[in-house]
Amino acid sequence: MSQLRRDPIVGRWVIVNTEDPKGPNEFEVAKHEFTQEANCPFCAGNEKLTPPEVDAIRTKGTQPDTPGWSVRVVPNKFPALTIEGDLNREGVGIYDMSNGIGAHEVIIENPEHRKTFTDLSAEQIKDVIDTSCRRAISLTGDKRFKYILLFKNYGVDAGASLEHGHAQLIALPMIPKNAHEELNGAHRYFEFHERCIYCDIIRQEKQEKSRIICENESFIAFCPFVSRFPFQVWIIAKTHSPYFCHMSEKEKISLSKILKDVLLRIKVVLNDPSYNFIFHTSPLEIRQAEGFHWYVELMPKLTRVAGFEWGSGFYIVPTDPETAAGYLKQASVTT
Amino acid sequence: MSQLRRDPIVGRWVIVNTEDPKGPNEFEVAKHEFTQEANCPFCAGNEKLTPPEVDAIRTKGTQPDTPGWSVRVVPNKFPALTIEGDLNREGVGIYDMSNGIGAHEVIIENPEHRKTFTDLSAEQIKDVIDTSCRRAISLTGDKRFKYILLFKNYGVDAGASLEHGHAQLIALPMIPKNAHEELNGAHRYFEFHERCIYCDIIRQEKQEKSRIICENESFIAFCPFVSRFPFQVWIIAKTHSPYFCHMSEKEKISLSKILKDVLLRIKVVLNDPSYNFIFHTSPLEIRQAEGFHWYVELMPKLTRVAGFEWGSGFYIVPTDPETAAGYLKQASVTT
Repeated sequence: MSQLRRDPIVGRWVIVNTEDPKGPNEFEVAKHEFTQEANCPFCAGNEKLTPPEVDAIRTKGTQPDTPGWSVRVVPNKFPALTIEGDLNREGVGIYDMSNGIGAHEVIIENPEHRKTFTDLSAEQIKDVIDTSCRRAISLTGDKRFKYILLFKNYGVDAGASLEHGHAQLIALPMIPKNAHEELNGAHRYFEFHERCIYCDIIRQEKQEKSRIICENESFIAFCPFVSRFPFQVWIIAKTHSPYFCHMSEKEKISLSKILKDVLLRIKVVLNDPSYNFIFHTSPLEIRQAEGFHWYVELMPKLTRVAGFEWGSGFYIVPTDPETAAGYLKQASVTT
Repeated sequence: MSQLRRDPIVGRWVIVNTEDPKGPNEFEVAKHEFTQEANCPFCAGNEKLTPPEVDAIRTKGTQPDTPGWSVRVVPNKFPALTIEGDLNREGVGIYDMSNGIGAHEVIIENPEHRKTFTDLSAEQIKDVIDTSCRRAISLTGDKRFKYILLFKNYGVDAGASLEHGHAQLIALPMIPKNAHEELNGAHRYFEFHERCIYCDIIRQEKQEKSRIICENESFIAFCPFVSRFPFQVWIIAKTHSPYFCHMSEKEKISLSKILKDVLLRIKVVLNDPSYNFIFHTSPLEIRQAEGFHWYVELMPKLTRVAGFEWGSGFYIVPTDPETAAGYLKQASVTT
């Protein structure tokens, strides 16, 4: 019989196949192919194909929008939201709307087209994280923005439209529904227990051990008890903090290492699947932040979301997180 | 500039491309191919390949689990939930879980492998709807179940694993998160206005006209103002009722016609895309039901959900619903 599990933060139920879990080789995974190398706007030498850069890590003496960079941030050429203007909210009959104010930036991870995230050294990944934090802090200074989301799509199945390695940063003029739910859930738990629910989750995972993949000085990686997707992973800071962009130097180094480690395990165990990762963080300057604890959610794209999931918000998980963690833990990778 | 629009029921924001909407031929759509015809468990003559039928519309004199049926309902051979047993909820540290009790049935729409939903006559579709309502009412009698979800996945991209036309019915031992949110949102509006928000939406859509695709005696089809996906459609009953399975005879006939009409328009305009449809309904015997109004949500699968959507719950909609409705309205189809 399957198991029903309830997310302790947002109340979502999932149906977990604990009886006959699907193995890592039973998923269909599309092979990654490089087809966009000619005139790729993210390659060194093609800097003129993007809007002017807003940030970069550069060799001393090189000019903006020329080669010589290792990480480069540019506004999205086709942004979902526009940076210029004031937010105007208005009603349209019973509906609410506003103009599309926000920021949409692309963090180009490295100048080489065929270097994917797991090909980068931990030092290079740290540069990407450093740059992302710097941009997030800078955008936080803009009072029109209420929430900043850092995420990455790798592979066509995960929604990536450009194959050259990049992450994205979107600043939103309102706190999105998912963040609201997490903040509220964590806050309710905090009010009741006067403890952070994420710290309690870390404690319980360390006790049970069965879902832990690996850990280092500052972070722990595990498959969450209420995974929505097979082989989903959380990477969470051992020290409580609501904001990812306030990470210490030591934490940034630790995160770079564990992120590379876990992504390599996923690549090896699941045949290089497409994936998304998302930084869950608190918005700055919000009262409920004390109960929130930032983390990275990593979702390999192995299944398709169908009518049942769209209709109910229930998820059917073909591989239970204990089995998934077992495979990922045993993978031998060299970081 | 894009527009931000807020769902008046569940509070979800979407980013709508109103400036340069993507046209219907700009989406990549996989061609549907029939590859599972040999030994298909849903074909006439192969009845022994499924668990014993629980319902069917049959020619007089034919035996269960033999040919002679036009619609046939069987338990899912690989059910997400098990029908036998009592629901046992328990805590595991800070987590909540229960055993996987529920029902998972398949409604085989017709005996022929290559007849898709839009190939059925309106009378045949009415038989499918009749049968679905009968099954929903029957499962409602089981006190362990709190919610019944009727849905269909068409095409691999929409999550269909068997290509022979079928819908699915899942009975759940708890009200799912999405239904909760809709019920609560509708209830809040009802408490404030003493009016059903869905009836108000119908009123506003009829006034604005720009999002309406078609209507008949009992139903109206339109692209919702806060569509999450391009070319998303709602088909809603003009008469207020919380429960789809309480439809009148006249309504069932009307729904069959408009469902076929809209699905044909989608097929013609969007090159036969994969799609999901979901019946949003109130659970039976619930206090807040008075503010709820059942409807069918239809989602062609044209885009991929990426990191931004998973992380925020915001959706980026490349075709605004006004443009989408225009295309669907103009399509010429013969039902």
